Amino acid sequence: MSKLNDLLQPARAGEALAAMAAVVGAAWLASDDATLERYARSTAARPTVPLAVVRPDNADEVAQLVAIASSHGLAVYPLSTGKNWGNGDACAVGAGQVILDLSRMNRIVLVDPELAYAVIEPGVTQAQLSTWLRERGLPLWADCTGAGPDTSYVGNIMERGFGHSPYGNRLQHVAGMEIVLASGELLKTGFGHYRNARTAHLFPYGVGPFLDGLFTQSNMGIVTRLGIWLMPQVECVNHFLCSVPRHGDIAAVVDALRPLRLDGTLRSILHIGNDLRVLSGGGVFPRAEVPAGARLPEALRGAMCKAAGVAPWTVSGALYGTGAQVAAARAAVRRALRGTAARPTFVTERKLRIGAMLARACGDSGIGRQLRAKVALGESLFAMNRGTPSGRFLAGAYWRRRGGLPQGFPAGADPARDNCGLLWVSPVLPMRGADLLAVHDLAQTVFWKHGFDLFATFSMVNERALGGVLTVAYDKDDLEETARARACHDELFQRVLEAGYIPYRAGNHSMAQLDPGGDTYWRTVARIKAALDPAGILAPGRYEPGAS
Amino acid sequence: MSKLNDLLQPARAGEALAAMAAVVGAAWLASDDATLERYARSTAARPTVPLAVVRPDNADEVAQLVAIASSHGLAVYPLSTGKNWGNGDACAVGAGQVILDLSRMNRIVLVDPELAYAVIEPGVTQAQLSTWLRERGLPLWADCTGAGPDTSYVGNIMERGFGHSPYGNRLQHVAGMEIVLASGELLKTGFGHYRNARTAHLFPYGVGPFLDGLFTQSNMGIVTRLGIWLMPQVECVNHFLCSVPRHGDIAAVVDALRPLRLDGTLRSILHIGNDLRVLSGGGVFPRAEVPAGARLPEALRGAMCKAAGVAPWTVSGALYGTGAQVAAARAAVRRALRGTAARPTFVTERKLRIGAMLARACGDSGIGRQLRAKVALGESLFAMNRGTPSGRFLAGAYWRRRGGLPQGFPAGADPARDNCGLLWVSPVLPMRGADLLAVHDLAQTVFWKHGFDLFATFSMVNERALGGVLTVAYDKDDLEETARARACHDELFQRVLEAGYIPYRAGNHSMAQLDPGGDTYWRTVARIKAALDPAGILAPGRYEPGAS
Repeated sequence: MSKLNDLLQPARAGEALAAMAAVVGAAWLASDDATLERYARSTAARPTVPLAVVRPDNADEVAQLVAIASSHGLAVYPLSTGKNWGNGDACAVGAGQVILDLSRMNRIVLVDPELAYAVIEPGVTQAQLSTWLRERGLPLWADCTGAGPDTSYVGNIMERGFGHSPYGNRLQHVAGMEIVLASGELLKTGFGHYRNARTAHLFPYGVGPFLDGLFTQSNMGIVTRLGIWLMPQVECVNHFLCSVPRHGDIAAVVDALRPLRLDGTLRSILHIGNDLRVLSGGGVFPRAEVPAGARLPEALRGAMCKAAGVAPWTVSGALYGTGAQVAAARAAVRRALRGTAARPTFVTERKLRIGAMLARACGDSGIGRQLRAKVALGESLFAMNRGTPSGRFLAGAYWRRRGGLPQGFPAGADPARDNCGLLWVSPVLPMRGADLLAVHDLAQTVFWKHGFDLFATFSMVNERALGGVLTVAYDKDDLEETARARACHDELFQRVLEAGYIPYRAGNHSMAQLDPGGDTYWRTVARIKAALDPAGILAPGRYEPGAS
Repeated sequence: MSKLNDLLQPARAGEALAAMAAVVGAAWLASDDATLERYARSTAARPTVPLAVVRPDNADEVAQLVAIASSHGLAVYPLSTGKNWGNGDACAVGAGQVILDLSRMNRIVLVDPELAYAVIEPGVTQAQLSTWLRERGLPLWADCTGAGPDTSYVGNIMERGFGHSPYGNRLQHVAGMEIVLASGELLKTGFGHYRNARTAHLFPYGVGPFLDGLFTQSNMGIVTRLGIWLMPQVECVNHFLCSVPRHGDIAAVVDALRPLRLDGTLRSILHIGNDLRVLSGGGVFPRAEVPAGARLPEALRGAMCKAAGVAPWTVSGALYGTGAQVAAARAAVRRALRGTAARPTFVTERKLRIGAMLARACGDSGIGRQLRAKVALGESLFAMNRGTPSGRFLAGAYWRRRGGLPQGFPAGADPARDNCGLLWVSPVLPMRGADLLAVHDLAQTVFWKHGFDLFATFSMVNERALGGVLTVAYDKDDLEETARARACHDELFQRVLEAGYIPYRAGNHSMAQLDPGGDTYWRTVARIKAALDPAGILAPGRYEPGAS
């Protein structure tokens, strides 16, 4: 843990904070207990209490704050909207750092409808950009994740998150960053640093070393603006869902779909979820029917799946194009799955309308409820494919929360505020059925050993790899369960690392585990960090195993 | 210009070379005049004579050579196969450096047919990989450029070159590099530095800062191996060609095709070439009919175009997929172009066969020759779309060469050896017709001022930008013309820079122009360079404006 700020004399810290308040205005710097407590809330149950929270309005203020931090040897920790659920939320890696909350910087600086891109600040949320485009009738969609409407694009991109659409490999759809360095200088990547540059946000590489990647999953600078590419609306979207009736059959399905992902027939990011992942999106843990602290009994799990019509695995993805293109893709998917146990269903807008009508006609019968749930899910998926984020996919975070989903969910859902317990491990694996089963089995063994149900999603994050999301949902009001959840997470993190299925992302609690020791990669990163931030004031410990 | 090696005492240099020879074996180090002269040949007429050429066999030897260079303060300049035509060829930026020629390191380390990738060394050429795949009957294609069969993938990727196929944005299809650093350490990027990593070449980002971009267009390290993704063969490829009958009409064509590139209907890289670009691919400058040193008279240019059936602009690209997918794309292209002056022709294998038959039937008539030339072009394009490189697209480099194309062309074509004069400027512009015309006009003004014909290609390098390639072909046997060519190039480079159409790549002769001065980007690059290569021994001056 960085001890930078711990070593600061209180008087020096006070001086620095006063200088920072003078930059942003007193209203935008807080160090009262209520604020500090709010920022320290973490789904990961590893709260780090900051020294203060400061909320700049623009890059120039950020630069001034960094200069003050630098001259006082004070660590600052930037966050966009602080919704890094399960990986640290709004917490710094180390305690006592000054949180630079960039959420006030939420300008949509420009949108070019012809060339289909936007320039945005870190505070811009999924809902905000989506609404902005819709209200102006622009035929563009932004990629969405299931992390909820109020999450930041920049924050997610800096963590190299992925979404659902053909633009789901988000970092590949970014061009031109503006970054405040520890020196206080403003770095523009790509062509942006040239006067009059006409393609600052159209061609990411620029000329000379391509630096963007260096600022993702790192603590090398503070991104204050970036160009994000938007997807032109297409004539036709079909969502496709595919139930896999037996656990082991998913392997053949992955192998059958891989060629379609490889050859570009499937351009969006397919998600393959296990039964609990789907169940947890439509309900909460049946606490009353299960002994305290226990996981879901197999019989009850089976009954719940049966009642909801949920198979052991569900494949979910979308096809985009003209009517003819989507029809061609649909035929290719059907052909590919012919020899497998899976049968795809293609959800169209028409089907959704008919389904909704039928569900209403069936009233409150079992089949009516099941149909209604499916229609609601279909509508959310459809909306998300077309750039309208939904909070409903956050439901999984509430699975073991006492009291279940809050009133009005998903509006305003905030797992950290709502005291949800959530941790996850995200191994990357070759896009092969055998690897999926191997990682699933490894994870299930670890989860069961620690008494947890395994929520598993494997997403086709690119044409050759699956990104796993293996979630521990736990009851944060139960201290024993919380400790078990952490032990489960840590053991799985270590096990996938050893097995060569390295996580694509790490929570604040895992940074130290990233360097097995004596690793040239991490030594190189440390050298670059020392060159760009010699005093180590920017987010010490963030993707910096040696300092965390 | 780096003076590193100039300052070396001859005795120290001799000592270093002796130590290097001991590493690679005496046969693989040369400093005789013939060798030095061969490496100093440059299409860009800016030869830099090296101190010696050393040819290591593997990364371990590279590391040892770097250690020797480091301890002696000797600059080394790595190259893959040294075919960076028009941008420096096999020359270092500065004279007196030791060329590290990596062409012996030409192992295809592995090919995974299921996950469609290869791991290759710098010496692997386009022809080598293509042949390897074909001979083993693997249903995979590697992206090709028109730079010829003997060019290196790694070399081109490090320069961020682009090809033609859906994998033509080459850097996006690379995962996992191995890099010898100035410290002699071997850095593995992505997940490759973790023991047992299963996705070292399947997921480029890894975890932590994503470093790959830092090593492209830079002098931060020596890439000795990388993972390159291969394209699965598809059922159907159609090449599409589109003649644009009047110069100004190209603008509307670009604007009509942009939405198809944006929405993924056109997944490969379209190339838009002017008449001279197409003419120069099928013949040489009619030297006998033109006054010495003059450019092509307009009337003659018109007559040549008419004889060859070449329009002011030709759009060329390929559609990939199943039969149904290609048919859907074809319909979309036809629909998009309906309101423009352009009519697309779709070249299929069947049409090529019939065309070849007809051409034979027409014998040596004018129409027969024209048809034969078109069939030959179509066949080369088709082969290239499917991963078989052709040397014929190098013909442009020979345009003004005395003696024209060498015997047996394109076999063994080597513009540097053959004393071709070639320089090019590669501005990136927004994918808009108006920008294409603006850059074309700007370039033509400069070219005509200096007495040169403009060879122009604009390629849809991604979904939003055009990469221009504006070539000065000149007679290197004519000193006055050579000086004019350089002046023309330099003026155009400066003009596009000022106009905000920044080049995506620079030749050895343009490195110093890249930094307008006081630029945070270049200052940041210099800081990173100093951290990774404090003695500045790796390729001083390469994308290092301050040192060149």
